[in-house]
Amino acid sequence: MLPTILDLSSLHAAYQSGLTPLDLVETVIARRTASNDPAIFITPTPDKDLRAAARDLMARAPEPNSLPLWGVPFAVKDNIDVEGLPTTAGCPAYAYNPGTDSTVVARLKAAGAIVIGKTNLDQFATGLNGTRSPHGAPRSVFNRDYISGGSSSGSAVAVASGLASFALGTDTAGSGRVPAAFNNLVGIKPTPGLLPNTGVVPACRSVDCVTIFAVTVGDGVAVRKVAEGFDIADAFSRHARPISLPGTGLRIGVLEGAEREFFGDTGVERLYDQAIQSVKALGATIVPFDYGPFREAAALLYEGPWVAERLAAVEGFLATNAADFDPAVRTIIEGAKGKTAVDAFNGRYKLEELRRKTDAEWQKADILLLPTAPTTYTVAEMQADPIVLNGRLGRYTNFVNLLDCAAIAVPAGFESESHLPAGVTLIAPAFADDALATLADALHRAAASGMGVDRDRHIPPQCAFVPSDDGSVPIVVVGAHLSGMPLNHQLTAPGGRLLKTCRTAQDYRLFALPGTVPPKPGLIRDPGFKGPGLEVEVWLMPPDAFGHFVQNIPDPLGIGKVTLDDGSAVSGFLCEAHAVRGAEDITHIGGWRTYLRSPK
Amino acid sequence: MLPTILDLSSLHAAYQSGLTPLDLVETVIARRTASNDPAIFITPTPDKDLRAAARDLMARAPEPNSLPLWGVPFAVKDNIDVEGLPTTAGCPAYAYNPGTDSTVVARLKAAGAIVIGKTNLDQFATGLNGTRSPHGAPRSVFNRDYISGGSSSGSAVAVASGLASFALGTDTAGSGRVPAAFNNLVGIKPTPGLLPNTGVVPACRSVDCVTIFAVTVGDGVAVRKVAEGFDIADAFSRHARPISLPGTGLRIGVLEGAEREFFGDTGVERLYDQAIQSVKALGATIVPFDYGPFREAAALLYEGPWVAERLAAVEGFLATNAADFDPAVRTIIEGAKGKTAVDAFNGRYKLEELRRKTDAEWQKADILLLPTAPTTYTVAEMQADPIVLNGRLGRYTNFVNLLDCAAIAVPAGFESESHLPAGVTLIAPAFADDALATLADALHRAAASGMGVDRDRHIPPQCAFVPSDDGSVPIVVVGAHLSGMPLNHQLTAPGGRLLKTCRTAQDYRLFALPGTVPPKPGLIRDPGFKGPGLEVEVWLMPPDAFGHFVQNIPDPLGIGKVTLDDGSAVSGFLCEAHAVRGAEDITHIGGWRTYLRSPK
Repeated sequence: MLPTILDLSSLHAAYQSGLTPLDLVETVIARRTASNDPAIFITPTPDKDLRAAARDLMARAPEPNSLPLWGVPFAVKDNIDVEGLPTTAGCPAYAYNPGTDSTVVARLKAAGAIVIGKTNLDQFATGLNGTRSPHGAPRSVFNRDYISGGSSSGSAVAVASGLASFALGTDTAGSGRVPAAFNNLVGIKPTPGLLPNTGVVPACRSVDCVTIFAVTVGDGVAVRKVAEGFDIADAFSRHARPISLPGTGLRIGVLEGAEREFFGDTGVERLYDQAIQSVKALGATIVPFDYGPFREAAALLYEGPWVAERLAAVEGFLATNAADFDPAVRTIIEGAKGKTAVDAFNGRYKLEELRRKTDAEWQKADILLLPTAPTTYTVAEMQADPIVLNGRLGRYTNFVNLLDCAAIAVPAGFESESHLPAGVTLIAPAFADDALATLADALHRAAASGMGVDRDRHIPPQCAFVPSDDGSVPIVVVGAHLSGMPLNHQLTAPGGRLLKTCRTAQDYRLFALPGTVPPKPGLIRDPGFKGPGLEVEVWLMPPDAFGHFVQNIPDPLGIGKVTLDDGSAVSGFLCEAHAVRGAEDITHIGGWRTYLRSPK
Repeated sequence: MLPTILDLSSLHAAYQSGLTPLDLVETVIARRTASNDPAIFITPTPDKDLRAAARDLMARAPEPNSLPLWGVPFAVKDNIDVEGLPTTAGCPAYAYNPGTDSTVVARLKAAGAIVIGKTNLDQFATGLNGTRSPHGAPRSVFNRDYISGGSSSGSAVAVASGLASFALGTDTAGSGRVPAAFNNLVGIKPTPGLLPNTGVVPACRSVDCVTIFAVTVGDGVAVRKVAEGFDIADAFSRHARPISLPGTGLRIGVLEGAEREFFGDTGVERLYDQAIQSVKALGATIVPFDYGPFREAAALLYEGPWVAERLAAVEGFLATNAADFDPAVRTIIEGAKGKTAVDAFNGRYKLEELRRKTDAEWQKADILLLPTAPTTYTVAEMQADPIVLNGRLGRYTNFVNLLDCAAIAVPAGFESESHLPAGVTLIAPAFADDALATLADALHRAAASGMGVDRDRHIPPQCAFVPSDDGSVPIVVVGAHLSGMPLNHQLTAPGGRLLKTCRTAQDYRLFALPGTVPPKPGLIRDPGFKGPGLEVEVWLMPPDAFGHFVQNIPDPLGIGKVTLDDGSAVSGFLCEAHAVRGAEDITHIGGWRTYLRSPK
């Protein structure tokens, strides 16, 4: 009745057709028993508790699918508290019994989801490979010689092998993305602070993120929407402030030249190039950017002071229980012992300086498309050189949380020789979580690599990810405020988001204003004129932010009504006529963005 | 010709009456020579350079008051770079010759202001008292036995004694506020990141702020508006995101019970209570709040890891020049040597937890009204117990930058027994800089304590410099929105109020738009044209109302910048040029109101 992979659409359909949560948990129990990987769980939810949870749900919400995650089985990484099951963080001597659920688990349970067990991990979430656990190494679902990726190893394997519809991971360096790549899964890595960390064992508390492994982007986003939201108990929790990305003409930054490092894995490189071709075919523009400052930021996570956060998290326990640590984990954490407070602040300064440099790169690209991991290794290889090889896995993931980004890792297909999957990750600035989803979903579908262990499953159709309106005011922007242009931050900083890209009515002319910094155009209406219409963007802004925005516009620009090609008149940028005398009329070029790109 | 205190209004009036910048610098030179405090300056601008600066200004911008700070003399704390003068940070062995101006000084000079010298400070801006300098201790302008406050000691005394119209300070713990309190001045402490720190010697780089000492709130805000703005070269610089505070029904949080600590200084306590009565009389509501979490955050600045930022700033120099440090400063900075990176992160966690607690207090109050300093001391007392007494001075200031707040310190009057002034500070969350100014100005006026050393000077009425706001935005109306006209209700209904009636600059033309209902004029700029200027009204509106208002303006009208006869550019009604083709030019009549009354 149920397919191998428990995507939400199939599960919903099964419930619609008469399946009950009790049937579901029996399937999960049977699959857990039949599983060929003994290292997935540290503490599986006992069978009787699973059955009780199903019965509780049916009593509490008898109607099938009456809750957003009604009867959806999920696995929880064992550094996230679930009431009634011990939290071990992969270190038996550290185990404690949490009195309550973590905030995210409580929200998911309230929405009808059912916890099937606590999963294995690189101890204290320190690692990207999945071999640093006394409970053994979960394996790639495609080849048991290979690592599953980590640190959220068991969570990824549980989803990819059809034990759960989704699973929670955590991600500091890339632990919610690398295992997705190695198991043909989607990894939703939310903006730091979007999902609360209350009831999560800290790794680097200032940058830790709870993540979601799912088999489709739609599933992952649906789960994220249940789990996300401000939590006053978590000092690093944040209120969401969704941002938009351009609806058309997306600029995708990709690796070039010496920054393309796959450690010899031409198979992964080929899949990365294929993903680049896919986003191109989807209408995006590929742009070069400098990965250098991102790479430097990535290096800070382990080479800089942030490793002291890992020590801060376990300092007392380490003092009494050093022998209980995985040797690699202990080596890494003890590496923080010599670091001073001056080092910590110097690290922060360095990061802020790199943030400035990456801000400049974000002017060139709306989204970065990177390999999730540059290559993979066998368990034996990893155990032979645990720190160096692990470091390689994080080459394209380690910067993401330090630089406050959102990311979605998606499958990129399978290598033709090794038959192992690889992944790519779409990355954008904070709170682009929703905005990333559309392209991520399209890219996943383009890979046509099935879902999890089932390489042939077709990804079910899904509804679009549509931003909702909240009574904001629309504003037409024409020049330096367009997406990616120098003044766009004046829209995004106060919470503006892109509604659409379109054209003005035909009777507008556009002029390149001389001597403006940054360069700006001036839009003027000329009734009777029949031009091409100018390409503009319509943004939505909160009304008070709009007021401040208008206040700060210098002459000769101002806000009047701009008539669009659909006949509507929307507030937008106009220019005083005196300022365009003698200015170059660029109307025929069709828009400011095209003008800037045109040879001059 | 010039009053003792060089407030901007008096200075403007003097320039209007024929004073020249050259006259002004001669006055400054004479006053510097006559000053009874030898400890104000570390490096005064040489007389010949002052005269050259005045001549340069007159050559560059011959028209009096043609720049926002035309011919305004200002002093600069000696940890802020001024090209051509050494930067010492109060430590001669540390001195260097900066090749360029700091960003803030460059902006102020560009606006016409003239640097009169580099002022004394607590070495490396470490202190709140003004005695930690090898150049001696500047004294309170009211009693030479008493400290001036610090660390921006010389800057405050320069303004309070009439040597400068304003001065730049820096503020990490309270260095831009405490000396304001002790010298009957206004201290503008902007939101961290609003004024760039490029070219400023760091104290705690993550929280340092450049500040402004002025004799009125209006003066201080006017200067701030020139100096503020994003600077890509400063990794901690931020784009402004102004927030509003309620226009009516402001809730002011004040100290209660055990949190009222004045270390026995009943005089300061009386003045604090008097300020509370004043804000009540001004229509605000006094509310209790818990100062506890703010006090705990304040303690973190010196007791927590942030002192390591001070060490990070001078670590290399300290290693080679320990003997060149002021003993108290050295003791404080060396206190950071034992602190670990774990301490640094634990401090950050503590701060984020306290931020959550203070967030809850901000739900109770819009603004906090606190004593600027709880008491003051003689130089002898301070030197006898330099660390403990200094710590007391920061009781109500140390948390402000750590918790990302804006603050304005204003005079609160004089103690009847000691005849020393005290101050109070209004504090609100980040980017309330403008929104705080209205109440700060009213509170300052209510104190009726003169300006600086001149206890009897009346604070001049302010138009050009008054920020006006509760975050309100000014809008120039020209036609149907004028008082008594058919659309005026669109301003009054959402709480708009008339600020003033005035005229536009000369290069505007007014046209009677044909076929408009109600009848409306169109205002168009015509550079080079010399007309009478058009009569207009400037209204203030709440920003969100302003946003809706702009939304509802039909074409061909819109909101651009209208230059007024005082040279300021204010948001206001403009008309698209195509709409005035063939319309009656009524510029010669001088305004819409007169036109409607004229026989047609």
